[in-house]
This record gives sequence, structure tokens and C-alpha cells, in this order.
Amino acid sequence: MCEASAYLIKDGKETLVLESVDIVEPLDAGGFMLRNIFGDQVIINARIQKMELVNHRILFSETETDTTDIVNRSST
Amino acid sequence: MCEASAYLIKDGKETLVLESVDIVEPLDAGGFMLRNIFGDQVIINARIQKMELVNHRILFSETETDTTDIVNRSST
Repeated sequence: MCEASAYLIKDGKETLVLESVDIVEPLDAGGFMLRNIFGDQVIINARIQKMELVNHRILFSETETDTTDIVNRSST
Repeated sequence: MCEASAYLIKDGKETLVLESVDIVEPLDAGGFMLRNIFGDQVIINARIQKMELVNHRILFSETETDTTDIVNRSST
């Protein structure tokens, strides 16, 4: 499987947002919806800073509004 | 290796932009720089529509200006 881990970079530090990310979709309101292979879903108000697929990393950096909601969905 | 293929969606059709993409970075001027594991680099003036990492797919959709430059770089 080729999922990646999503990190939020804030003040130069990386914080893990979600592991095993499969789907990344931009939202009309800004930010991104991340969904992992277990069905967990995170809305992150951030912009993509860099993706390193071979290293399985997606790096986000903060936008002005930093409200990240985590929604756990049961796997199907 | 967990690289992905980048596609541009235009008029409902997918066109392959670059295979074996490793690095994706947004550009200040808009659009994205894609670099694959062979060192080939593409600048794409498009926005991310969806990423499906398990399926190894990154889908871009067009912005107003559709100028995509391909720069081949020797692998290092």
C-alpha cells in the first residue's frame, strides 16, 4: 500500500495530522479533506507545502485560520 | 516505490502529465512543480482536484491559463 502520512508544519515543527492517508481533496471553503485507509477523515485548514510520495510524506503549512476538525468514520 | 501518476483533467478527459511522480510542490506564481523519480520535472498550471495515493493517482484540473512546460533533467 502506498498511503502517506500528513504533517502540519507550524513554527518549524512537524505535527502528525493523519497516518495512512489515501485520499486528499481540496475543499471549496479552503483547506483539504484527508481520508485514510481506515476511513478516518480530517479537515485541515492549511495549504500544501510539499508532497514527497516516495518518502510517504505530505507536508501542510498553516493558513490564517487554524481549525482542524477530526471526524472518525467507521471503516466500511 | 510509491510514486504516482499525475493526470490533467480537461473536458472530462484525463491526460497523463507525468509518471512516477515523487515530489509535488506549489509555486508562488500558481500551479505546481512535479518531479518524478527519474529527475523529469513538469510545471503545471492547474489545481489539485483529487489525490488517490493507494491508486497512485494525482488528478489536476485546469485553471484559466493552461501552459504546461516540461523540463527534462538528467537523473542524478
